[in-house]
Amino acid sequence: MSFASPVSDQRLVLDHVVRIAELAKSNRFAEATPDMVDAVLQGAAEFAEGELAPLNTVGDREGSRWVDGAVTTPPGWREAYARFVEGGWMGLSGPVEAGGQGLPNSLSAAMMEDFNAANVAFALCPMLGLGAVEAIDAHGSDDLKREYLSKIVSGEWTATMNLTEPQAGSDVGALKSKAVPAGDGSWKVSGTKIFITYGEHDLTDNIVHMVLARTPGAPDGTKGVSLFLVPKVLPDGTPNDLGCVSIEHKMGIHASPTCVMAYGEEGGATGWLIGPELGGMSAMFTMMNNARLNVGLQGVGLAERATQRAVAYALDRKQGVRAGLPVRIADHPDVRRMLVRMRALTIAARSLAYYAFGQLDRANVGDGEAGLRADVLTPLVKGWCTDVGCEVASLGIQVHGGMGFIEETGAAQHLRDARIAPIYEGTNGIQAADFVQRKIGLDGGAAFDGLIADIRADAQHKELILLTDELEVLVASARNASPDDRLTASYPLMTMAAVLTAGWLVERLGRAINAGEGGGGNAGRRAAIEYFLSVIVPEAVGLGAGAEATAEMIYQAPAEELA
Amino acid sequence: MSFASPVSDQRLVLDHVVRIAELAKSNRFAEATPDMVDAVLQGAAEFAEGELAPLNTVGDREGSRWVDGAVTTPPGWREAYARFVEGGWMGLSGPVEAGGQGLPNSLSAAMMEDFNAANVAFALCPMLGLGAVEAIDAHGSDDLKREYLSKIVSGEWTATMNLTEPQAGSDVGALKSKAVPAGDGSWKVSGTKIFITYGEHDLTDNIVHMVLARTPGAPDGTKGVSLFLVPKVLPDGTPNDLGCVSIEHKMGIHASPTCVMAYGEEGGATGWLIGPELGGMSAMFTMMNNARLNVGLQGVGLAERATQRAVAYALDRKQGVRAGLPVRIADHPDVRRMLVRMRALTIAARSLAYYAFGQLDRANVGDGEAGLRADVLTPLVKGWCTDVGCEVASLGIQVHGGMGFIEETGAAQHLRDARIAPIYEGTNGIQAADFVQRKIGLDGGAAFDGLIADIRADAQHKELILLTDELEVLVASARNASPDDRLTASYPLMTMAAVLTAGWLVERLGRAINAGEGGGGNAGRRAAIEYFLSVIVPEAVGLGAGAEATAEMIYQAPAEELA
Repeated sequence: MSFASPVSDQRLVLDHVVRIAELAKSNRFAEATPDMVDAVLQGAAEFAEGELAPLNTVGDREGSRWVDGAVTTPPGWREAYARFVEGGWMGLSGPVEAGGQGLPNSLSAAMMEDFNAANVAFALCPMLGLGAVEAIDAHGSDDLKREYLSKIVSGEWTATMNLTEPQAGSDVGALKSKAVPAGDGSWKVSGTKIFITYGEHDLTDNIVHMVLARTPGAPDGTKGVSLFLVPKVLPDGTPNDLGCVSIEHKMGIHASPTCVMAYGEEGGATGWLIGPELGGMSAMFTMMNNARLNVGLQGVGLAERATQRAVAYALDRKQGVRAGLPVRIADHPDVRRMLVRMRALTIAARSLAYYAFGQLDRANVGDGEAGLRADVLTPLVKGWCTDVGCEVASLGIQVHGGMGFIEETGAAQHLRDARIAPIYEGTNGIQAADFVQRKIGLDGGAAFDGLIADIRADAQHKELILLTDELEVLVASARNASPDDRLTASYPLMTMAAVLTAGWLVERLGRAINAGEGGGGNAGRRAAIEYFLSVIVPEAVGLGAGAEATAEMIYQAPAEELA
Repeated sequence: MSFASPVSDQRLVLDHVVRIAELAKSNRFAEATPDMVDAVLQGAAEFAEGELAPLNTVGDREGSRWVDGAVTTPPGWREAYARFVEGGWMGLSGPVEAGGQGLPNSLSAAMMEDFNAANVAFALCPMLGLGAVEAIDAHGSDDLKREYLSKIVSGEWTATMNLTEPQAGSDVGALKSKAVPAGDGSWKVSGTKIFITYGEHDLTDNIVHMVLARTPGAPDGTKGVSLFLVPKVLPDGTPNDLGCVSIEHKMGIHASPTCVMAYGEEGGATGWLIGPELGGMSAMFTMMNNARLNVGLQGVGLAERATQRAVAYALDRKQGVRAGLPVRIADHPDVRRMLVRMRALTIAARSLAYYAFGQLDRANVGDGEAGLRADVLTPLVKGWCTDVGCEVASLGIQVHGGMGFIEETGAAQHLRDARIAPIYEGTNGIQAADFVQRKIGLDGGAAFDGLIADIRADAQHKELILLTDELEVLVASARNASPDDRLTASYPLMTMAAVLTAGWLVERLGRAINAGEGGGGNAGRRAAIEYFLSVIVPEAVGLGAGAEATAEMIYQAPAEELA
């Protein structure tokens, strides 16, 4: 079935959750006028609906193919990518100096949500480019910026992130790839990287690889890591010493080639430092934090898409009788419950994700507190919104009954595609660890406490207030806990904090609606918001016991005895 | 990786949850001595590990193929099925008069759990046979029993369930297939049935289809439905007028052919009534209740398999450092949390499912109250154990990190296979409706209240007592609620009741362990049981708000506004 961008929902969240009009008062985002916002939402919607959504099924069915080092994307992909470049979509929030439009990240988020909803396997390619643009812009030399930035901002070339190696997944610091100085300012990079998304493809003439490697004499662990820009094609037009050895056979996102990349098999791939030597992690985190928020948007987009598909099916499919008349399954209480739940989770995840991007935008116009808040929110967006994507996609299958399990229906693809999001760009367990190990203590705890204080000042629903109380106590206790106890509690704490923040934001959205904003569709939004506050928030309170579990409990048996 | 049957866990549950020794005191189950129980568990383990598990991957990769009406199962399937028949596994709990061993259903449950864990797509075929045996034994004429029962009990022929038609899914009463008398006591059956598991295959020479159809002048709805036995090959050796038109392309269980069946395209397929005319639903429910409990066991089996795979990977895979040494990921707190959770859910789901089969066994030796309890438990086993299967399989993917998303790892197949179980044999929403519409009111409410009273008399953990209190209030309120309010609350109520009952049973298991039973592996069991009671039970308390949600809340917006 076709996809329709939720433009009016997106606009409401931008207006009343992000409060984008406040951003437009700054010089930097003066272009983000209401008319511009509408034009972007409308244009992104048309591109997603007209160009990307029609390729989603063929992408899943055909997948990308690897033959002798070359990767062929599915039929129609090249043409769609060319139109993506033509439309200038890659540069929406890109730096003006490099040809971008410099619009807010929160507006770009709406665009990326649409692209994810329409065709997440396609959208992954530009998503990585967005991160690379940030990293090169913030840490790259003027020469590198001149050579590469505008090409990535235009979409003429794509970019990749190369962290993972067979022995170095969550433990990035265990990576072994090497870089040695070539004597002319460039470096010779060698090593094997795995799980490299769009590491090779036929969409563009060049691919800009951002590669983590160790320099001679570098210390062990993450402190010894440097970031290199390693292009597929060198500035003089010759091919670099790198290649795609194979691609993976995956559960979902079949059209997105997941590559094993070999660098320097013939002496060393030529690359250039991004940021200082040994400064790789900091430069990579610029890229990764962007990517983490964007992976959260994959959850939002797939939740939106799955909800639309389920509602359409439930309105069409008739089963049983109510009051003597054949009834659409949407009118059966438990199906309606599922649809309301799907919508509630989707609205809440969107609100949380856009809000986090909005905090980044505020940081970019000088609001340091907002920057810290974005840091606190990043693991919540990545962790919870991707869990939401899986839950909603799974509910979407359930709404379809037996048809949901049949691949041609399309509902199953959403779950298969969504299932990667809790894993890549730092597993959700890593996000939870980041939340309890760094984020609740950021700025001496002030960053997290400020969020709680804002919620407390605003929250009206009694369940929301209850969750605030509960979380405050649990976080205070986590701060004083042993590292292992804190990590044992981390996942439920992350979920509780995300649900609380999202609940606060949808309550805010609900007040705007009650004040007359939104118009068409407000009854649906109101039902979803009430369900979120009355049902989903209390479920998060129920996670409190898990956040009180100690390491002693889960470590009482040797792991061997768990199977 | 290889599969190892959890024989000692199964034995503990049979001994201390089912209390199979009490059953063995009856004449009917006198054969179920401790030695026999061990022999069956050991034999089933060997068959599952040695014959079925090695075919699980090829089954997923190759699937069953349809060509011109014939269905070819994957390489190795025919040989494994022949050995299944040779081993006499089909008749373990089958009627002695038909060549079965007449052992308890609760023991057969352990066998089916193993077969599901090893290869659920294979195990589906005998699973449907078990239901057919019950239905023919209870409702079939002596002639039909003589002709068909021993052949199905031996496994020489397989059997299918034919309810669903394109317009009649959850609403079985909407079916249109017809049967008219042929004048010789047989009937001419015609119509199209969809989603028919193993409707056609190459494992046996004959397939016995159990088909619901309407007789001339029958009333609308389920009251007008009769059950027919329609064999692929007629007693005189000629082919019947029926065939497989196509098979489905599914998310999982690829090796299990899901058939569209056409009956009577050339005048009518010959069939015979099972039970009286218009008595089809009652006969079918005999079959379906058995199948529902068995689908619950698919959740248990896949949870067990996913847990084994995840633990093995987490013990093998090293990432990061603790106390200066490389560490297995099983030793990272959040990974350990996932493993303990997987084990906890698996043990609890097994306890609930086996207990329900044990109640059926008690009913079969004359305990009427146990029969009613089995009725109460059936939707809980089907609904919750299949949800557990999906949750644990998804956690299993997560434990593997990026490798979990790669098909060759095997973890993804478990989720793809598990995802059908909440859908077929009555969606979990239908189970929830059955629970609140019929089961909480069964025998004037005494059946459910008796369960609660037993739990209350026994439960010691404070969270379990809290959940008992909570559920009792919510069920009392559901009994007095409007039908729509009751259905709105149905899913969370079903989950809460299942978690409560499972929690009670694992606490019982824990007491046996503390009294010295079990031996090796008890530390792991203790950790899992403590986690279930301390963490998972409180999560179920958190579902209470959803059980208090009213139809007014979810119906406040037209369904069109939910997308």
